[in-house]
Amino acid sequence: MAKSKGNAVVGQSGGPTCVINQSLVGVVEEFVARRTGGRILGMRHGVAGLVKGNLIDLTRVSRKTLDLVAATPSSALGSSRDKPNRDYCQQIFEVCRKNDIRWYFYIGGNDSADSARIVSEVARDASYDLRVFHIPKTIDNDLRENDHTPGFGSAARWVACAFMGDDLDNRSLPGVKINVVMGRNAGFLTAASILARTSKDAGPHLVYVPEADFDEARFVADVQKSLARIGRCQVAVSEGIHRKGEQPLAAMLDANAPVDSHGNKLLTGGALGAHLVNLVKAAAPKARVRADTFGYLQRCFPGVVSETDAREARQVGRLAARAALAGKPSGSVAIRRVSDKPYRVAYELVDLSKVARDTRHLPPKFINRAANDINDSFLAYVAPLAGKLPTVGLLG
Amino acid sequence: MAKSKGNAVVGQSGGPTCVINQSLVGVVEEFVARRTGGRILGMRHGVAGLVKGNLIDLTRVSRKTLDLVAATPSSALGSSRDKPNRDYCQQIFEVCRKNDIRWYFYIGGNDSADSARIVSEVARDASYDLRVFHIPKTIDNDLRENDHTPGFGSAARWVACAFMGDDLDNRSLPGVKINVVMGRNAGFLTAASILARTSKDAGPHLVYVPEADFDEARFVADVQKSLARIGRCQVAVSEGIHRKGEQPLAAMLDANAPVDSHGNKLLTGGALGAHLVNLVKAAAPKARVRADTFGYLQRCFPGVVSETDAREARQVGRLAARAALAGKPSGSVAIRRVSDKPYRVAYELVDLSKVARDTRHLPPKFINRAANDINDSFLAYVAPLAGKLPTVGLLG
Repeated sequence: MAKSKGNAVVGQSGGPTCVINQSLVGVVEEFVARRTGGRILGMRHGVAGLVKGNLIDLTRVSRKTLDLVAATPSSALGSSRDKPNRDYCQQIFEVCRKNDIRWYFYIGGNDSADSARIVSEVARDASYDLRVFHIPKTIDNDLRENDHTPGFGSAARWVACAFMGDDLDNRSLPGVKINVVMGRNAGFLTAASILARTSKDAGPHLVYVPEADFDEARFVADVQKSLARIGRCQVAVSEGIHRKGEQPLAAMLDANAPVDSHGNKLLTGGALGAHLVNLVKAAAPKARVRADTFGYLQRCFPGVVSETDAREARQVGRLAARAALAGKPSGSVAIRRVSDKPYRVAYELVDLSKVARDTRHLPPKFINRAANDINDSFLAYVAPLAGKLPTVGLLG
Repeated sequence: MAKSKGNAVVGQSGGPTCVINQSLVGVVEEFVARRTGGRILGMRHGVAGLVKGNLIDLTRVSRKTLDLVAATPSSALGSSRDKPNRDYCQQIFEVCRKNDIRWYFYIGGNDSADSARIVSEVARDASYDLRVFHIPKTIDNDLRENDHTPGFGSAARWVACAFMGDDLDNRSLPGVKINVVMGRNAGFLTAASILARTSKDAGPHLVYVPEADFDEARFVADVQKSLARIGRCQVAVSEGIHRKGEQPLAAMLDANAPVDSHGNKLLTGGALGAHLVNLVKAAAPKARVRADTFGYLQRCFPGVVSETDAREARQVGRLAARAALAGKPSGSVAIRRVSDKPYRVAYELVDLSKVARDTRHLPPKFINRAANDINDSFLAYVAPLAGKLPTVGLLG
């Protein structure tokens, strides 16, 4: 049954990415192109703005502005870290009913999918025809049902470029360089650092992800082995690495770390890097040892964008709007991979409950046996997502 | 008197940049093009490699490799932090004499210029005809006699892009965001963050450089004012900010900070950012407050390069070789600005002693009276160096 009456609303949630505005513009341009007569409203700061009626009419935004916004990092509508419970979703629903909203688009991660799911249930219970569409987004790449998620490819590209440049830096002034990459539970982004291995002996020489237990003594031994072999060592660690059965090291080290809206200690401070530097320094006092914590730069750096990522982010937005206007039931747009070479994907609308709440992890097959590196098989997975990297020239 | 016999040597020193290899290739290509019959040798890891005779014949490197190397960040020959004293320079001279080196090219900052100066004196005292040419390089932009230095423009571009993306991030999830930028004594790179103000209310909203005393209470008041005005605040601080008459805050905060080869405590840890976060948190407990320390990424990020910077870096290398083969006396190639609009520069060979040792600072005219911002007049200076930045689109 095709629907064609009423208005739509679209929002962005969670941490921004370089391409989340592509998805926003994808939804808007497809909705507008179908000329339903309805309006598409943007939530200012996600559900937090929606419940206050803080909406902007996107139907009236010019094509030129839309194109500029699509190419701009971060969430142009503003984002929110609110994690709505049932009461909150009831409020969301009331605002939707008041504005004759019949299509609800929400761009975000697993928490966003979950709130979208609850909103759709509340509407159903009230016998109000509201179709809810979740559009995937997260640099963590941890959404279930998806081969990968929009935002990850560009962040992976940034991390790969950062490691390339940093490895060249560390060749020129040799030593141990530790880089802390975003990823509390999922190691995909840290694993993407191996894309930087585009020349002989290039780093990262060691990679540690949260999916494997971290052992500090083993780490120091690993670093010393690399120092003995090539006189230097570049290390990639996820901010979420942890000893067996313990909480993340970064959280344990930084008693004063600020807490996010979910009550989790932030891991983006320099404490983990400093701790690892001190461990290496104690064992190899003569080595030059440095650490950087990449922090928020990983997700919104203008100009370091994967074209594939940008295209797919646009496409999932368009497909959500197309599905909506074709009368499809509520769901989440998921990306499946059809083949690696040539790289091809297909899109599917899956049940909201399938992507909501739980997340996925870096599959064990990509982690080497010693749990200090990522297997080359991961390259076939990640390379097409990050796009062609800069070429490096070395002197002999 | 034109000289045309003997060999040349070229080295790279200090912290690498995105364009230091342009200067290297500039020297080599110009030397080779003059067909003197002599060879041009590269020092592996600067003077440290030179005194060990660790040299590579660059005359034999293919044009294709040179082109690739020129476009690659960091120091392809390897770098050194050695600060040669007179004895060390005597050793350098002996290796030069042994290899019939008649032209000595050294790419680096003020310390490199100083060692080049001493080498030229040692040679003169031995009545050995050695011409020494210093080629400017430093992201700190602190070389005397120069309007600006190769490496700075690309680092400024990187910092500007980082602030642009980070400000968009901070718009989407509003709060206080503090970014620590490289710069122990000179605030040029931190000041370059104001290039990011390409849209209404864009950050940075506050900028603190080492050339002005830092007052923590005033800083907190400044942040609160910005929060009250627009609900958020993006802050740029140099790693070298200090209270009146004191050493850098970062060094005071981090008792365990590693020390560099000059005995200075490294300021790249997260301690300064964490301290500033805590100050703001104490005064504004409800605000979302975060800090990032940009660290080493600022100087070698592939793909984020200013075209002007790359072109000028190439040119100073070429001009050094041209001066050398034209029989000019020892000196340092300096960049002078002829005009802002259109942007034009001229190059000059100045006496080594004029750029050696001492450095220059951000001129006071660029710092606002409250010492918490950079004046717009700085934009005319820095914009042509960083190049055209990505365009940002906002929704109303």
